[in-house]
Amino acid sequence: MLNKKVKVGIVGGTGYTGVELLRLLANHPNVEIVAVTSRGDAGLPVADMFPSLRGYINVVFSDPENTDLAECDVVFFATPHGVAMNQTPTLLLADTKVIDLAADFRLQDVVAFKKWYEMTHSCPDVLKEAVYGIPELNRDKIKSANVIANPGCYPTTVLLGLVPLLEQKLIDFSSPIIADAKSGVSGAGRKASVATLFAEASDNMKAYGLSGHRHHPEIDAQLKQLAGNELQFIFVPHLIPMIRGMLSTLYIKLADSAKNVDLQSLYEERYATECFVDVLPQGVLPETRSVRGSNHLRIALQQQVNGYLTIVVVQDNLVKGAAGQAVQNMNVMFELDEKAGLDVVPLMP
Amino acid sequence: MLNKKVKVGIVGGTGYTGVELLRLLANHPNVEIVAVTSRGDAGLPVADMFPSLRGYINVVFSDPENTDLAECDVVFFATPHGVAMNQTPTLLLADTKVIDLAADFRLQDVVAFKKWYEMTHSCPDVLKEAVYGIPELNRDKIKSANVIANPGCYPTTVLLGLVPLLEQKLIDFSSPIIADAKSGVSGAGRKASVATLFAEASDNMKAYGLSGHRHHPEIDAQLKQLAGNELQFIFVPHLIPMIRGMLSTLYIKLADSAKNVDLQSLYEERYATECFVDVLPQGVLPETRSVRGSNHLRIALQQQVNGYLTIVVVQDNLVKGAAGQAVQNMNVMFELDEKAGLDVVPLMP
Amino acid sequence: MLNKKVKVGIVGGTGYTGVELLRLLANHPNVEIVAVTSRGDAGLPVADMFPSLRGYINVVFSDPENTDLAECDVVFFATPHGVAMNQTPTLLLADTKVIDLAADFRLQDVVAFKKWYEMTHSCPDVLKEAVYGIPELNRDKIKSANVIANPGCYPTTVLLGLVPLLEQKLIDFSSPIIADAKSGVSGAGRKASVATLFAEASDNMKAYGLSGHRHHPEIDAQLKQLAGNELQFIFVPHLIPMIRGMLSTLYIKLADSAKNVDLQSLYEERYATECFVDVLPQGVLPETRSVRGSNHLRIALQQQVNGYLTIVVVQDNLVKGAAGQAVQNMNVMFELDEKAGLDVVPLMP
Amino acid sequence: MLNKKVKVGIVGGTGYTGVELLRLLANHPNVEIVAVTSRGDAGLPVADMFPSLRGYINVVFSDPENTDLAECDVVFFATPHGVAMNQTPTLLLADTKVIDLAADFRLQDVVAFKKWYEMTHSCPDVLKEAVYGIPELNRDKIKSANVIANPGCYPTTVLLGLVPLLEQKLIDFSSPIIADAKSGVSGAGRKASVATLFAEASDNMKAYGLSGHRHHPEIDAQLKQLAGNELQFIFVPHLIPMIRGMLSTLYIKLADSAKNVDLQSLYEERYATECFVDVLPQGVLPETRSVRGSNHLRIALQQQVNGYLTIVVVQDNLVKGAAGQAVQNMNVMFELDEKAGLDVVPLMP
Repeated sequence: MLNKKVKVGIVGGTGYTGVELLRLLANHPNVEIVAVTSRGDAGLPVADMFPSLRGYINVVFSDPENTDLAECDVVFFATPHGVAMNQTPTLLLADTKVIDLAADFRLQDVVAFKKWYEMTHSCPDVLKEAVYGIPELNRDKIKSANVIANPGCYPTTVLLGLVPLLEQKLIDFSSPIIADAKSGVSGAGRKASVATLFAEASDNMKAYGLSGHRHHPEIDAQLKQLAGNELQFIFVPHLIPMIRGMLSTLYIKLADSAKNVDLQSLYEERYATECFVDVLPQGVLPETRSVRGSNHLRIALQQQVNGYLTIVVVQDNLVKGAAGQAVQNMNVMFELDEKAGLDVVPLMP
Repeated sequence: MLNKKVKVGIVGGTGYTGVELLRLLANHPNVEIVAVTSRGDAGLPVADMFPSLRGYINVVFSDPENTDLAECDVVFFATPHGVAMNQTPTLLLADTKVIDLAADFRLQDVVAFKKWYEMTHSCPDVLKEAVYGIPELNRDKIKSANVIANPGCYPTTVLLGLVPLLEQKLIDFSSPIIADAKSGVSGAGRKASVATLFAEASDNMKAYGLSGHRHHPEIDAQLKQLAGNELQFIFVPHLIPMIRGMLSTLYIKLADSAKNVDLQSLYEERYATECFVDVLPQGVLPETRSVRGSNHLRIALQQQVNGYLTIVVVQDNLVKGAAGQAVQNMNVMFELDEKAGLDVVPLMP
Repeated sequence: MLNKKVKVGIVGGTGYTGVELLRLLANHPNVEIVAVTSRGDAGLPVADMFPSLRGYINVVFSDPENTDLAECDVVFFATPHGVAMNQTPTLLLADTKVIDLAADFRLQDVVAFKKWYEMTHSCPDVLKEAVYGIPELNRDKIKSANVIANPGCYPTTVLLGLVPLLEQKLIDFSSPIIADAKSGVSGAGRKASVATLFAEASDNMKAYGLSGHRHHPEIDAQLKQLAGNELQFIFVPHLIPMIRGMLSTLYIKLADSAKNVDLQSLYEERYATECFVDVLPQGVLPETRSVRGSNHLRIALQQQVNGYLTIVVVQDNLVKGAAGQAVQNMNVMFELDEKAGLDVVPLMP
Repeated sequence: MLNKKVKVGIVGGTGYTGVELLRLLANHPNVEIVAVTSRGDAGLPVADMFPSLRGYINVVFSDPENTDLAECDVVFFATPHGVAMNQTPTLLLADTKVIDLAADFRLQDVVAFKKWYEMTHSCPDVLKEAVYGIPELNRDKIKSANVIANPGCYPTTVLLGLVPLLEQKLIDFSSPIIADAKSGVSGAGRKASVATLFAEASDNMKAYGLSGHRHHPEIDAQLKQLAGNELQFIFVPHLIPMIRGMLSTLYIKLADSAKNVDLQSLYEERYATECFVDVLPQGVLPETRSVRGSNHLRIALQQQVNGYLTIVVVQDNLVKGAAGQAVQNMNVMFELDEKAGLDVVPLMP
């Protein structure tokens, strides 16, 4: 563990993942926030834009042009897709690590990246060494990584919900894996938009992403890698009138080999040492608010007819689904206590 | 069509289905509300309890003991399960028709009824002649029925979402039919309860009904009858922080025979003459608010990988899912304009 | 009353007041919607943008340049401030009446108009003959008016809440009139904006308009005219996490002459013949949802210490506070049933 | 400061103030939770009722009959009114301090107590030595107190909003002090009730407490004591569709002596050393979410016409308005860091 504090920079501090990073890092015992950049709001104290941070964050937004991020030990990119990949090679040369909360390093397949994000990847070499940042799956690789692809919010729920089955090869891939996923509106980000206005999104819900959601190829690729197998994956995201929170209901067909397996115990044992993954007791289903504001992810199993299993997974989309997982990755990279800055009790009610 | 008005009684007017019946019947051109009973609130003007009805409904809650419902042409039961079946035989003797918004006449299997509702059916003979009240499926039978089992809210979405495929035998039953269903909180009724308090249910969501939901056997029985086939049905309901609205996402495996069928056209043709069922154009997904306060139900189709089809269905759970469908059934039974009282434009935003 | 239908045009049909006009006019028995214009969405069927109107509105958005509004009997302007005043003189020449839902004709003082709306009034002569469109105050003038200034949402609640006292000179003007007003978020309109995103406005509230709200001078001028007196008016608006609904809590000091007046009776008598203004019985306070979707406005009186009176007023900001009042004004202008198109029972719950 | 941990008992741990105490105390460095009682849920692990506490609180609800609270250093009563006063004398004999979150010790006038709470006070002697627990007003008395009356949620906002003016005698008492107060629904507590159901309270608001609210006499008494003067106080509470959050808009007439006072500076100086009271810069108005989950209270001043001043105050009703202030009082009583356990960054969005 370091004796001196980790110097942190945040590029793009005005969105929800940016302000959420600041909330978590404000009380982090081993971190010094060196810079928070914003092209449009340079010169403005961060706490003027986000009064919830008054008294906690004294930094002023700085112009990215005039900010030397190379003095940071680690830089978080809470930016639109495409920003991180342009700055990462330079930062790596300065021995600055990068945690990208956007999608620049999530898809190893640069063709798929171009298809889904409509831009050519600018540093495929760096991409190759980037580590997909779910500590519960890739902790060892994260420890020595220089570039972290912080996962999308939906993928975290689907992957952690299926990993114990995938590792033990207990899924029958002749039927598709179905993820019926539900997200709070903050997942759409803090940008002016009619579709996510209060008067549009409140007292209302819908499925969306008819023509395909960008988290589909991300989940698909990770599932195939974990399965070591071809598989079919159906993903339907829904928008729910809540600020935070994500619930994914997963439907899978169990393999014959699962018949004699105590799945509840399998999950409990797989995650026994994980401080942020909580397998609920048999017969209990999770609510999203049980993780509101915290880095926890809770899982419940429900046996169905005909050899099918339903897995219900909840997380706070802005914490375990974004900024919290990013901090957790940083803690692993710098050999800090993995819970540092993340010891926040969920806010209920 | 009748020249005189239909005399209507409502048993149990203090719950959400009761007040919703009153909202719709208040402007119904062919109806006279004769009595609204409530054991606990007898003597209270209905509009004192529901100020939204001030100026529209002048009836006073009457004590069920002192109310002669036999003078009504039709009685709606907006009561807890078990009330309607006790009073229906007497009403039928007086030539009064019955529309039960509870479950007393939904399950033809009295053993299943006892299992799920924990009471013995009191009039199995009447049950046999009861008609399951989805006009789009059973219009002719409803016309001549004396007793209507008004369907549950979830079943209406699942059944109308699948009927075109079931009728044409386009589903491969080797895989289960999966209904991932989401309901607004009003579905839980207007009764004091901690779980549905604002501070519990707001900014929160969950799956529920782990040990089985009463709509499961209801849907299951109707599906099997429509399919003329055994099938497996998985049903996971979720509670969503909105007052009204229900969205069911259905996942089915298409039969090989579906390969050359234009499913979009199939749905559009099946419902072409139905004024309350709206098949959305290809590429459009429905929002629950698009039917808020109205008797419409909207359906969208989405092709998936591997021969799977997703069907998204929305309705207002209190209207097409309850009181609106009950009024529609009444209109059919009394040969009124099927839209009478139901010509309400959805409230948006 | 006309035998033929009133030909209606709507300029700016894509905002909340526009779509609300369409909801109400869709079922209006005496209206034909001739044109709905939108610069940005010309060519798009209205119901494609607002699926709630599918089956009710078949009009296509037309380009304002290519739309001959002069063939309309009346044109509603549901536009940003400044649009109506530029087109009204031309329309008047064609004997087309104008109902402006924006502020162009609300302030008779053109200096104040310039100060608050930052534009010079383009037709002060037309302004002079414009009638402030609250039928309960100005019904006779509205009957013969050619141009209606449809009031702001807040002013409607404050003015109708105080009129009986003002007319009877029962307010002590040595103390200010205080209006602590609360509005649902739809009042901010259907335009992309960060401040009214669901994730910003939900589970949150605030006072706003610190530097002055445009409804302040509007209310102030009307109050002074009704009072025939100078007076001080304090107005603090608040943003509330609900879609629709407005509640104004008014605090006034009663004049000595009020001591022997039965204020409850005064209010009931003043509004006895008004179908849309409802004085609640003593001891009952109104909820905003009791008028959701309807043109009703409800008032309750509450005596306070020290000769003070509190008046609580609720309305649906989009109906009596905007589109509903506009339709009511049209009904008065064309000698239609004042309730035509407005006979909508409030949606509860 | 103590070397050993403060032993804490909580009577009534199943309501919102109870679970909120647990959330804050879970991470308190100087506290050991010894007992959490609940008559109805004895034997149940606390975290089974509140899954948000899984991993943080391992205590099991104990039966009050079998729980020796005398071994605690301090007992919090998060109970209905009337419970604390019956148990406090016994606890005091055992040198156990008491912090009552209900109203038993808030009104020094036992006649008023009987009138508003409909019970005779059981220990007037203890009442006399109880200290009204707002540390910013009574810190010294709290240090040596054995019994704390933790204030009501509304009183905290009104009193802290007015203290600087009252202390400097800058209010003209010839006009009443008006508090137009707005509260989130959690203020009504976690008890089964129709009025606070999601489907009743969502997308809706109302004024309430027409016949008088219990916080009125509490505020009134404190105001008079602080003013050293008679005064008139008007209080109208409103219910707002948000879980947490309270905003009070205060209207006062300034005394002539205020004319030359820089009120902004007055407030800033009065609260300069208070870590939980934040005076916003001139021109900034607070949102309730800026304090969500935290013990902060924010104040803004707004000059009005005619020598009137508006003061806007926000807090989280469950934290600074209840459990957070209780923990703050405990910290003062036991000479702990006043921020211990309360260093929670507000949750935004």
